[in-house]
This record gives sequence, C-alpha cells and structure tokens, in this order.
Amino acid sequence: MTVTTERDALEAARSAFRLELLDAGLLIATSSPGVYGRSATFERILTGLDAVLTDMAAPLNATAVRFPPVYPRADFERTDYIASFPDLSGVVSSFEAGDREHRELLGARERGEAWDGWLSPADVVLTNAICHPLYATLEGVLPADDQVFDVFGYGFRHEPSLDPMRLQSFRMHEFVYVGTPQGAQEYRDTWLDVAQATLASLGLPITAVAANDPFFGRAGRMLVSAQLRENLKIELTVPIYGDLHEGTAIASANCQREHLTAAFGIRTPDGEVAHASCVAFGMERTTLALLRTHGLDVATWPAEVRGLLGL
Amino acid sequence: MTVTTERDALEAARSAFRLELLDAGLLIATSSPGVYGRSATFERILTGLDAVLTDMAAPLNATAVRFPPVYPRADFERTDYIASFPDLSGVVSSFEAGDREHRELLGARERGEAWDGWLSPADVVLTNAICHPLYATLEGVLPADDQVFDVFGYGFRHEPSLDPMRLQSFRMHEFVYVGTPQGAQEYRDTWLDVAQATLASLGLPITAVAANDPFFGRAGRMLVSAQLRENLKIELTVPIYGDLHEGTAIASANCQREHLTAAFGIRTPDGEVAHASCVAFGMERTTLALLRTHGLDVATWPAEVRGLLGL
Repeated sequence: MTVTTERDALEAARSAFRLELLDAGLLIATSSPGVYGRSATFERILTGLDAVLTDMAAPLNATAVRFPPVYPRADFERTDYIASFPDLSGVVSSFEAGDREHRELLGARERGEAWDGWLSPADVVLTNAICHPLYATLEGVLPADDQVFDVFGYGFRHEPSLDPMRLQSFRMHEFVYVGTPQGAQEYRDTWLDVAQATLASLGLPITAVAANDPFFGRAGRMLVSAQLRENLKIELTVPIYGDLHEGTAIASANCQREHLTAAFGIRTPDGEVAHASCVAFGMERTTLALLRTHGLDVATWPAEVRGLLGL
Repeated sequence: MTVTTERDALEAARSAFRLELLDAGLLIATSSPGVYGRSATFERILTGLDAVLTDMAAPLNATAVRFPPVYPRADFERTDYIASFPDLSGVVSSFEAGDREHRELLGARERGEAWDGWLSPADVVLTNAICHPLYATLEGVLPADDQVFDVFGYGFRHEPSLDPMRLQSFRMHEFVYVGTPQGAQEYRDTWLDVAQATLASLGLPITAVAANDPFFGRAGRMLVSAQLRENLKIELTVPIYGDLHEGTAIASANCQREHLTAAFGIRTPDGEVAHASCVAFGMERTTLALLRTHGLDVATWPAEVRGLLGL
C-alpha cells in the first residue's frame, strides 16, 4: 500500500472502532471529538482495573493524594508546559467585569460574534498531567530521602480526534517517586517491569518501547531526540489497529530527573535537587485496550481476566 | 454585633475551619483559593458517602453515565449559562497557531507580559453542572414516558474563596428525571424527602430551605425572585459556622421544568417538550459537613455513621 492508502485504512479502522463502542453503548458521543460519556459497564471495567493497580502498588506504601481537573495557573507558569506543549494546553478564562460589559458580551453573542474578548484569565488551568499539581505541594526539603505518591485524576490534552484511544479528557493513575537520582532511576526500571507484568496478567499483549513526549514545533524536535537518546521514557503499548499501527501506549514509565523538581524547588534532606520518576497508567486507554483485546461483551472475556477485574 | 463585625467573625470562622482541615492533612493547599488536594482519608469518606447514595437510589433503576470535567462548547452555547452565570463560567482556550506565533507568545511571556492573546477558543468548556452534558445526549424523542439518569463527575465554578465549603472544582452526584411535567414535579418532591432522610441518617442536622441559583447582575435579580416565588429549588443545608451563618447547602432538589429540555429539543413520546427535575449532592460539601459535624478524627465518629459509610 502507498503511504496515503495506509493512512486512510488506519483512519477507517479508528472510525470503525469508535462506532462499535458507540453502538455497544460503552461510550456516548458528544458534539466534540474525543469527549464522551462513559457507560456503567465501561466504569465497572475501569474501576476493576483501578483496584488491580492499587493492589499492584501496595508494596510501595504510597501516600495517596487526589487533585481536581484544574490546578493553579501560577503553578502551570512554573513549568515549561506552554513552551513545550502549547497546542495541548487548556487555559481557563471567566467573566470578571460588570453589568455593562456583560450586556456588551451578550450583544456580541446575539449577533453571532465572538464574545471571548470580554473574558479574563482565571487563576486556574486544566490539569495537563495529574502529577503536575503534586510537585507544587512538595516545595522545600523532603522529610525523608525519598517518598512515593499515588495520584489519580483527570488530565486534559487539547487534541480533538476521532480515534477513541485519543481523548481530550481522561483519567490517569500515577505512582510518583521523588528522591535521589539513583533511587529515581531504579524506581523507573523496577516499576516498568511490574507494570508490564500486571498489564500482561490481564491478557494484554504488551510491548515496551522507547518513547518521547510530543514536544511542539521546530525547537521541540531537538528535545525529542535528546529524550530518546537518553532513554528516559518507556511506553507500554498494545496493538489496537492490527498491522496498520505500531500500537498505542496505555501506560508509561518515565525518569523525569530534576525537570519538575528543580522548577518547584524540591530538595532531598542533603540539600540536593530531588529527582523524580513515575509509572503512569491511562485509565480510559487501558479499559479500551481490554475491550479491543477481549471483545466488547464482557461476559465472553476469559474467566481469569474477569476474576482479576472483579467482573 | 454590627453587620461588619458579624461578617468578620464569619470570615474568621471559615479561615479557622480551612486551617483545621489543612493541619489535619485532610485537604492539601494549592496556590489557588478553592483548589485543594484531597487526602486518602477524605476520599474514603467521600467514597463511603457515594456508596450510601447509590444504595439510596437503587429503586430508581437509573441509567448511569459518567461525563468528563469538560464538555462541548457547542452544547454550552445552547444553554443560557453565559447569560445567567457568566462570573462562574470556565471557558477553555488553547494554542492553535504555528512556530512564529509560538515564538511571539514565549517572547511576551519572557517579558512578563500577558500571552493569552495568542490562544484560540477550544471546542470545550469546563462542565459547570454534571447534568448539563447529559441533556445534549438526549436530543429527540425519549424512548419512554420518563427515564432517570445517575450522573457523577466534576463541576466547576469560578468563585475563588477561602471558605472550604466553596470549592472551584468539586464532584457532584445527581439523579436526574426526564419525562412528563407531573412526573418531574412528583419526582422532585419524593426524592427531596428521601435525600433529606438519607443525609439525616448520617447524623447531619439537615434543614430544607427554598433557594435560588446565583443569577448574575441586575437582570439576574428578577430571575431569582421568580425562582423563589415558584418554589422550584429546595436546598438541604447544614450549619457549618454556628449562628454566624444560616447554613451551607450540601444537596438540592430542583424542578427545572422545560428549561434545559427545550434548549436541547428533548420530547416525550406524545411529542410534548419533556420536563426535568433532579436531586443533586455536593460530594465534597457533604464530606466536609460530616467532618464538621462529627469531628476531624474519623475514629471518634458515631459507630452507626461509620458503619453506614463503611469506615
């Protein structure tokens, strides 16, 4: 096949999977690509998966923290997200003026004109990755050489797509290590293996591949090659569209080194900048990978998998 | 006390409650007022409460749907939210231009200037109430005379505050009736009583009061008086700050009549515009009301309440 027909075939496969999920009632369409309602069955799978991940992580004795889907703009500004991933960001604004400006806004809207000009930046942005709000809460010296956090919540990526594996708003479960440079590297390596084994136990055909973040633009291409060269990010992928695609990441294990810990002034008791690493699971993506692998009717899934997921 | 000193005393009581929650580690502060991390203990209470509400609603045989914290801007535009509650809205924008504009944005940011001007409106807004995304999915003729939906998820209100009872981003569990006018009114009345009894069973000193939505501005004041006159919204309140405040709403029962169903073209099988009503629980507010009522140490709560919540 030529490149064009291969790409068309992949788009067709994505559309077909999306329609199957909608027809089965597992996802409920909205008017925005990548924004869906989830059915009770979808949530039962996701909840079962979450219990498996929580059991997996029990030896970590992690401190659980839950953050909402928005976080402070002041903290967002301390990261380089708007430099590296401007196209994925979700910046929030609201109306902070008076009656007169509100009448003007409504007048513009009535005439079918843009009305965003009457809004002001809010003090929050959409949480891009659920570990980002964590770092600001750790500013200063850590109470011990290292600590592991269990974070769960909604992430946002502005990338409208008809591929059901690519949502704009999705849940992530992350287990984040903050501590010494050596500890961060070891944690990444150990928990990459554990994550792979856990997902494989659910019958998912997992491959671990060196990966990069989707840095923006011309300057971003250099960051991509550096990240790949240093082997900092490993993704766990599952084939979703057969030979048409190399597989979709459902989880990843990353060594961030001092990238965010330096930005938020997080130090180990010996005064050095802390290093961080994490293992992160895409909850919707993994749920969809289970549905793609075992079929859309949960009753026909392998008994062992249903047992593990409590289904 | 004069009005000013009463207001000062109330603000002091709110700050004190906030500090107690932070000191106990139940909430984790961020740099934005009304945006917090939640501890494992906080989440255990909230999860237990959610199980109680799910049991309460079992006779409804509700269809469960879960929506993410953002929903389509096109659907938001079909409601009158930006007319009625502009100050509470959360409108999302992102970067959709190229390398050159991105360099300009980063240059402005480097100089400490505003950089929002380089962003474009995204196709989503923050979900203001978790039932709003539902209505767009019901457009057309209902399959039966009436149906009840169980929706749970994050709502957003742009109202930064140091009162821990007033969060910007919070979870809601709503049970929404869509059907006939008479059915909507009866549902509201019946489930107001059930909700009140359920919350009272958890030891909360509940009062039901006629209430209004916080409509914006001069025009909004007329909407407030109409809503109160027709007794459409009833809030279930709990005293949080003693005599300093009349009590904070933790749940409400509302008859929306055809307000949103007309906007989304939802009809009953006989061709009439459907009516809607709902009973809605603020998950964080109810959790905080439990902590305020029974104390910050869950181990000392009444055994019966702990039993019901599975704590």
